[in-house]
Amino acid sequence: MLRHSTTDDQRFMSAAIERARLGEGHVEPNPMVGCVIVRDGKIIGKGYHAKFGGDHAEVAALGSLESTDNARGATAYVTLEPCCHFGKTPPCADALIDAEIGRVVVAIEDPFEKVSGGGIAKLRDSGIDVTVGVLANEAAAVVAPFVKRVRTGLPWVIAKWAMTLDGRIATATGESQWITGESSRRAVHELRGRVDAIVAGMGTVVADDPMLNARPPGTRVATRAILCRRRLPSLDSKLVRTASQIPVWLFAGPQTNAAQRRDLESAGAHVILLDDRESDDMVTTTLKRLAENGATNVMVEGGGEVFSSFLSVGQIDEAHVFVGAKAFGGTAAPGPIGGQGVERLSQAWAFKLHQIDRFDDDVRLIYRR
Amino acid sequence: MLRHSTTDDQRFMSAAIERARLGEGHVEPNPMVGCVIVRDGKIIGKGYHAKFGGDHAEVAALGSLESTDNARGATAYVTLEPCCHFGKTPPCADALIDAEIGRVVVAIEDPFEKVSGGGIAKLRDSGIDVTVGVLANEAAAVVAPFVKRVRTGLPWVIAKWAMTLDGRIATATGESQWITGESSRRAVHELRGRVDAIVAGMGTVVADDPMLNARPPGTRVATRAILCRRRLPSLDSKLVRTASQIPVWLFAGPQTNAAQRRDLESAGAHVILLDDRESDDMVTTTLKRLAENGATNVMVEGGGEVFSSFLSVGQIDEAHVFVGAKAFGGTAAPGPIGGQGVERLSQAWAFKLHQIDRFDDDVRLIYRR
Repeated sequence: MLRHSTTDDQRFMSAAIERARLGEGHVEPNPMVGCVIVRDGKIIGKGYHAKFGGDHAEVAALGSLESTDNARGATAYVTLEPCCHFGKTPPCADALIDAEIGRVVVAIEDPFEKVSGGGIAKLRDSGIDVTVGVLANEAAAVVAPFVKRVRTGLPWVIAKWAMTLDGRIATATGESQWITGESSRRAVHELRGRVDAIVAGMGTVVADDPMLNARPPGTRVATRAILCRRRLPSLDSKLVRTASQIPVWLFAGPQTNAAQRRDLESAGAHVILLDDRESDDMVTTTLKRLAENGATNVMVEGGGEVFSSFLSVGQIDEAHVFVGAKAFGGTAAPGPIGGQGVERLSQAWAFKLHQIDRFDDDVRLIYRR
Repeated sequence: MLRHSTTDDQRFMSAAIERARLGEGHVEPNPMVGCVIVRDGKIIGKGYHAKFGGDHAEVAALGSLESTDNARGATAYVTLEPCCHFGKTPPCADALIDAEIGRVVVAIEDPFEKVSGGGIAKLRDSGIDVTVGVLANEAAAVVAPFVKRVRTGLPWVIAKWAMTLDGRIATATGESQWITGESSRRAVHELRGRVDAIVAGMGTVVADDPMLNARPPGTRVATRAILCRRRLPSLDSKLVRTASQIPVWLFAGPQTNAAQRRDLESAGAHVILLDDRESDDMVTTTLKRLAENGATNVMVEGGGEVFSSFLSVGQIDEAHVFVGAKAFGGTAAPGPIGGQGVERLSQAWAFKLHQIDRFDDDVRLIYRR
């Protein structure tokens, strides 16, 4: 095994993954993909899938070359298997073959059945040397939301909360604004600005009267999805008053008031009336509806009962935990996740620590299941 | 202002601070001090105060030179003002003067009244160019425990707890072992092995029957200080059974049982009987007694009521918060700090984020007031 060449492959794939990430918030429901083209140990072309419906990463990278002739015999590093079918754009495998690329290094195969393995086979059939699996874990983490949606029909769920260094989301008397500083809150707005939907429960709506939008706006406008098992938001709430500008979807249980539902519809909210069965599994119902409407990433902002419901059905894929540099104390001060919780330690919901960021005196811990 | 030279000063002082830290756990109740000697932009000597009663940093650095002649005209970077009085060792200011050092850069003045400013004046009087204040904040952080003890007669207090990513220290049914992984727990034992005392409340003793010692042993053996307002530990507890090997101090309120106190003394525990007033302010009483017996660093391991008592009297200087990569949920699952807590957010106990460390999937957040 050539240790040196393995390291080079990883280095160039890492550059391709870095490019892929630039598409975050722009390309969904497509996957983020990055590509770099290397000749004589130097990157001579770079590209990424920059927006939904736009050029794929390979085509963008080929297009970035000073001359198309430079592709001949060069190596292309692609974070995801090149596609082999006609979608919105011609197959990328063909583009690489036509450019007479000599070698293709792929991080992971495409999880989409129509494509999986086909692109690689097509490249190999035309005599191109193909290596698969370089930095596969890192590349898989980037497309995890896409993969979940394709495989399960449900969006990727990101829970977000802010707590004190002693794990409280409010004082014993209920004060909670603000636990974290401005730069943390800016990071929350950035997240809101790239997801497709923001979920909250009625407890949060009643307590905080939140807007649940990104300020300033991001790359997409998230639908505000409210879980209304029994109660509905008031017509005076900020959510409803802005419903004509920013979509509000109310997932309403069968016990909610019919006249109120009609008033809310007139005010511009979209009411999805659930039957008993759907209401009992409100988390899955909500997620399925959101995915059907194109959602890849869904953010859950709480409160505690909502987080508990999502965890109970295994539907928190990622948690963004902001820890503020203050302590509240108090046995009565609430923590972020309510409900019954687990009884035994062996039943605890296990996560992996994915990323740590510091914002002044705050920390953001990103976990994944 | 010579921007370049400022950067050099900071770089060399940073190296001196790094040396200073090597004395942690060895030099207390003395302060940690580091020194590097620089000639022509290169470090030619390094030293630190390595153990209580041993050479001071400046003497160690001078001693590390290839030849003592090399000190002539060189610059010495010292994290703390060189001493000018005869203590256990001759004055360091004299050593620098005798070595014909040309310039001395000092991070902070000595907070100890007998020394403060005197060492610097002595150097200047002998014609040495002295700069004060380079990386003062960083150097002050290193000697903060020493400074607190000298100024207030109370030791530096480090609270330590482990909580889940949703801020729980146990499940709703009380299971708590283990929230964090092995490498986090190793870090806790390292901390235990360098402090002078470990404080816990009777709730913790009854619930966990802990040893409260460092495994493996560290540089010093911490006295185990138990706050016994009403209850005393049983003779069968691990603490009491090991009292003859590792000191156990029981701070006993006046309501504790006299016969039990005698039995505990016979079993090797040291009982400090408090009167009503001392018992009412048990935190300060305990800390004062520990400082009088030479303690610089005291670790508090809980439980929630103990943390609350310490915070209420402003006696947590540093918090080591370990966050494990699991969630428990449950409104009944306890958080780390009990008591009443604060009512208003404006009354929250504010900290500064001092350090972030990762241990596998756990994070250690170190805060300071």
